[in-house]
Amino acid sequence: TGLGLLAGCASSSGTFTQSGKASFYADKFNGRETASGTTYRPNKLTAAHNTLPFGTVVRVTNPRNNRSVKVTVTDRGPHAKGRVIDLSKKAARKIGIVDAGVAPVELKVVGHK
Amino acid sequence: TGLGLLAGCASSSGTFTQSGKASFYADKFNGRETASGTTYRPNKLTAAHNTLPFGTVVRVTNPRNNRSVKVTVTDRGPHAKGRVIDLSKKAARKIGIVDAGVAPVELKVVGHK
Repeated sequence: TGLGLLAGCASSSGTFTQSGKASFYADKFNGRETASGTTYRPNKLTAAHNTLPFGTVVRVTNPRNNRSVKVTVTDRGPHAKGRVIDLSKKAARKIGIVDAGVAPVELKVVGHK
Repeated sequence: TGLGLLAGCASSSGTFTQSGKASFYADKFNGRETASGTTYRPNKLTAAHNTLPFGTVVRVTNPRNNRSVKVTVTDRGPHAKGRVIDLSKKAARKIGIVDAGVAPVELKVVGHK
């Protein structure tokens, strides 16, 4: 995971932040098992991130509208260049990226469950 | 995994086929562990698929240029709507989708390793 953290930024206070693009889960994932062993539900506030530990709480901000949402990392992904996180449908809706499909976001780790 | 198979098509001869969009792994994944426990290497012919068993060999065809490549499923993903497979960099190069980033493909299971 050291490699992944290098792609983000640890500030002097140790806060992990990262910029990149977000997408969200297709509806067909409802009921499927995530990499952490939990079941994906579109109405939960969860996300897939490639390196942050499961249970990490991340604040995801859409700089286009300044809306943000806190999500818990429960899964791994995405693989495509520039993508940093895949949000649950509810989380994507909260920050207004469902219509766009893909949108720039800013991540900040704010806790752990 | 039954849900996933329903998204594809089992023909009368039992062949699994699926149409959708492919993307490919960002270079930063080089050396990282896949969901199957293997190490991702850009120069191997591998892929991430959400439901096919690890070790399944899939022929991936780009209908725009009729080029195809056989890849082995070693990882899980992608999550975004319409996406069916994430290819290794070498596999993506072989069917000519690196510049486009995302492209329609047709999948057909052809074996197992």
